[in-house]
Amino acid sequence: MSGERARLFLYDTTLRDGQQTQGVQFSAAEKTEIALMLDALGVDYIEGGWPGANPTDSDFFAAVPRTRAVMTAFGMTRRSGRSADNDDVLAAVLDAGTAAVCLVGKSHDFHVRAALGITLEENLTSIAASVAHAAGRGREVLFDAEHFFDGYAANPSYALDCLRAALDAGARWVVLCDTNGGTLPARVGEITAAVIAAGIPGDRLGIHAHDDTGNAVACSLAAVQAGARQVQGTLNGLGERCGNASLTTLIPTLLLKEPFASNLVTGVGSVSDLTRISRRLDEILNRAPDRSAPYVGASAFAHKAGLHASAILKAPQTYEHVDPALVGNERVIPMSNQAGQSNLRARLAGAGIEVAPGDPALAAILTSVKEREDQGYAYDSAQASFELLARAHLERLPRFFEIERYRVTVERRLNAAGRRISVSEAVVVVRLGEERIMSVSDSVGASGEDAGPVNALWRALAKDLGRWQPAIEDMALTDFRVRIIGAGTEAVTRVIVDSADSRGQAWSTVGVSPNIVDASFEALVDAIRWKLIRDRAV
Amino acid sequence: MSGERARLFLYDTTLRDGQQTQGVQFSAAEKTEIALMLDALGVDYIEGGWPGANPTDSDFFAAVPRTRAVMTAFGMTRRSGRSADNDDVLAAVLDAGTAAVCLVGKSHDFHVRAALGITLEENLTSIAASVAHAAGRGREVLFDAEHFFDGYAANPSYALDCLRAALDAGARWVVLCDTNGGTLPARVGEITAAVIAAGIPGDRLGIHAHDDTGNAVACSLAAVQAGARQVQGTLNGLGERCGNASLTTLIPTLLLKEPFASNLVTGVGSVSDLTRISRRLDEILNRAPDRSAPYVGASAFAHKAGLHASAILKAPQTYEHVDPALVGNERVIPMSNQAGQSNLRARLAGAGIEVAPGDPALAAILTSVKEREDQGYAYDSAQASFELLARAHLERLPRFFEIERYRVTVERRLNAAGRRISVSEAVVVVRLGEERIMSVSDSVGASGEDAGPVNALWRALAKDLGRWQPAIEDMALTDFRVRIIGAGTEAVTRVIVDSADSRGQAWSTVGVSPNIVDASFEALVDAIRWKLIRDRAV
Repeated sequence: MSGERARLFLYDTTLRDGQQTQGVQFSAAEKTEIALMLDALGVDYIEGGWPGANPTDSDFFAAVPRTRAVMTAFGMTRRSGRSADNDDVLAAVLDAGTAAVCLVGKSHDFHVRAALGITLEENLTSIAASVAHAAGRGREVLFDAEHFFDGYAANPSYALDCLRAALDAGARWVVLCDTNGGTLPARVGEITAAVIAAGIPGDRLGIHAHDDTGNAVACSLAAVQAGARQVQGTLNGLGERCGNASLTTLIPTLLLKEPFASNLVTGVGSVSDLTRISRRLDEILNRAPDRSAPYVGASAFAHKAGLHASAILKAPQTYEHVDPALVGNERVIPMSNQAGQSNLRARLAGAGIEVAPGDPALAAILTSVKEREDQGYAYDSAQASFELLARAHLERLPRFFEIERYRVTVERRLNAAGRRISVSEAVVVVRLGEERIMSVSDSVGASGEDAGPVNALWRALAKDLGRWQPAIEDMALTDFRVRIIGAGTEAVTRVIVDSADSRGQAWSTVGVSPNIVDASFEALVDAIRWKLIRDRAV
Repeated sequence: MSGERARLFLYDTTLRDGQQTQGVQFSAAEKTEIALMLDALGVDYIEGGWPGANPTDSDFFAAVPRTRAVMTAFGMTRRSGRSADNDDVLAAVLDAGTAAVCLVGKSHDFHVRAALGITLEENLTSIAASVAHAAGRGREVLFDAEHFFDGYAANPSYALDCLRAALDAGARWVVLCDTNGGTLPARVGEITAAVIAAGIPGDRLGIHAHDDTGNAVACSLAAVQAGARQVQGTLNGLGERCGNASLTTLIPTLLLKEPFASNLVTGVGSVSDLTRISRRLDEILNRAPDRSAPYVGASAFAHKAGLHASAILKAPQTYEHVDPALVGNERVIPMSNQAGQSNLRARLAGAGIEVAPGDPALAAILTSVKEREDQGYAYDSAQASFELLARAHLERLPRFFEIERYRVTVERRLNAAGRRISVSEAVVVVRLGEERIMSVSDSVGASGEDAGPVNALWRALAKDLGRWQPAIEDMALTDFRVRIIGAGTEAVTRVIVDSADSRGQAWSTVGVSPNIVDASFEALVDAIRWKLIRDRAV
């Protein structure tokens, strides 16, 4: 690769192939949030799903978000025995009204005969007719050549004919899919080069790799080095079986590392938000982030070996291949040493808490954070609770109020009409100095139905906090996440609560307990305390 | 690669570099167990640790297990200003008495000057003297050339001189280490080929790659394809930062896939125990196994897409690059909204529920699955609840018992001693035909403390189920997972419960409700119902 920088296009399929991950089922609202994150990152295409295949994908396309990236609907080439005009599956894809459509079809002779049961010629006709039908309705068309690498190995001229049929019918892109994920990187590079040598232009060629041999990223890079100019992948490498090529790994490699950085240009300007995006996706999935993920993992720049940690302090490049700040990540040096304390001071200063260097409270805070993280607290995800913990050690935490006790009841029974209902009710007793306030509330969800014990507790707590009430009126709970740490019903529960107020502040707090209600309550109380401190500072 | 099959040596460093993983700290007994697993697998070298560096490693070498694999002690070349005879760190490594020692040293001129502060010539002398000292005491010696690829890029002749110094002094192997993990596969292949072209024999050359760009496996394969004949890595890719090259991924690729399988031979005869070994390591580490891990992950052969699942039933090779049985893993056809009638029937048959093709219940079940997954149910993670749903549609679900009502209370208050405690209590009323059973229980966690409302409900429910009691006595809840769908405290909660019994059966059930207690209860009741059906079938 040399000469002027060529444009490389990034195609994200988190919302379609990523949804094939076992245990992943996005809602339409989650799909919209992810699409907007991808758009802000700067990918070129967002494959939103398969319109008509399931209610969620249909809902998503019915209220599809506006994006700079080209929104793409996925589908398959027309079924045998039907005309493209008369295939209701294909019609549903086009009816989604997206600017682009990606149609998957066969390119491996064995699959044409064994899976479709049609002749090789009929398959070519089907590809051409489907692509022409979509292109004729003004859509940018991509053709996903399923099993391309296995197909090329078995019958190279037929596999190439499938690509040519799509291009000749008006496809903007043909995409080489390693559907089974079994092709190794060197072979992907060789075949991609052979395809280009056979006359398929690299700037109309994409690569779609899977991770079944742990090589999805390497296969994608090999195809790009051979001349392919579109890369398909997913955030965090979600996808069928072992996953797709991870764009979270590929994008920084393409932007920051040679020979790619000097020879290619993408629509992504900066990857400084990459770590946040990766973690947010895990939050949506309620998955623990992969600590060892390249670039964005919590351990990606953690230097545990003693020799490495001391060298890093002299010259970071000794054990870091890129600067962690470029991808929005952080260097981690064991908490016990001097670097740990200076990081802590910086973090506290960022929260408006100034501490002198060498203050003995710094060591106490570090010890306390480590002990509590061992118990299950997660202060990286709950900065507000971290600030409250630090303030307690620094004796800068006012005693706004105290909880004397609470009780919450959940009851499930038949109502007078014979319908099964559940009712949650909470009582909270709060002390503000000499004042004692007892509040009771039931639980009321968005549509008036019972919403469970945490909702009831929050409503009882928020009902009357005496002189602090104005602060409470101004806040809302925006998210609530539960993770079980350890195993079994007797494991410890971690609850993280996200809150926001009318001034646009957002903050997160954490609670941990074997009792999920208790863990939730701890996080709720922290959320209120943090808000009271912040309001007082304004 | 052609001609007769060349011997490729496998070098495992799980017990040394793997221990650099954040959060990993093996005991000496765990090291012994892992060493014996590696030996049974058939690796050639086991790097056991750094004798003298910490008490665990010293304890492990003091009672080192007997292995067919060559046990190797890790250390570093002599420190500057000391003779090899007079370096106590090097002495501790040799005192471990292993057949082989692996000594790490510098090969990048920048590091020699910046980190060691010695001349380039002094470093060569140090490498030669250290290797000669160990070889002179009868040890097989390996030299780990730290930062080799960056060093070769900066000063190729000096990097090669470091390798020659080690080989000339008697090293059996020189190992090219990509210490920072930033070198991409194509470059690793080029440099390895250049090293061999410069006269370093491939059968004395090893590769040690890290996963900082997600390419550790691909880098290792590139070096082997270029002629290196030793591969270093760890089980499950443990290791500093993003981890080392995963031998769990590399070994099946080398044994089962071309061009490696036909051209190379290793000491590993079969990989049919690989999945078990990988999962056992996760058990030792108390980590959830990576579902998407190549070859051994629980999802590695899971076919969620409807089109894939129906093709798999006709011919497994359509969507599997290797047979899962070869690596001791299993094919999974999960239920999901992507599934069609053909795999639905297969899935039901697998659960002992035979349904005729075209039975109208099949369409009703699929519709119901889609609707309920839209509400938040996740049947691919909860096969037992799926079976119950299908049975309800097929009118093959006995009414074992009915829940008339339940009530659960959580109270937090000060106890008589002034200590803050929480108490959970549940009442459940069950009907079995004419019989009405009312049970009450509090919650008791592993250490006798309150464990929350779900634990209390389970205990009350399991206390007395009349004639079904024997089935309940035989089951235990093994895991409990909570996911909030949507946002805010008013969102819907999905709970998945894993259960097991004394016959080794394990099953998962799901419940969904805005009320977390109610969702949990639904999953608990499903778990019992599934168990009753399965017991009756036995």
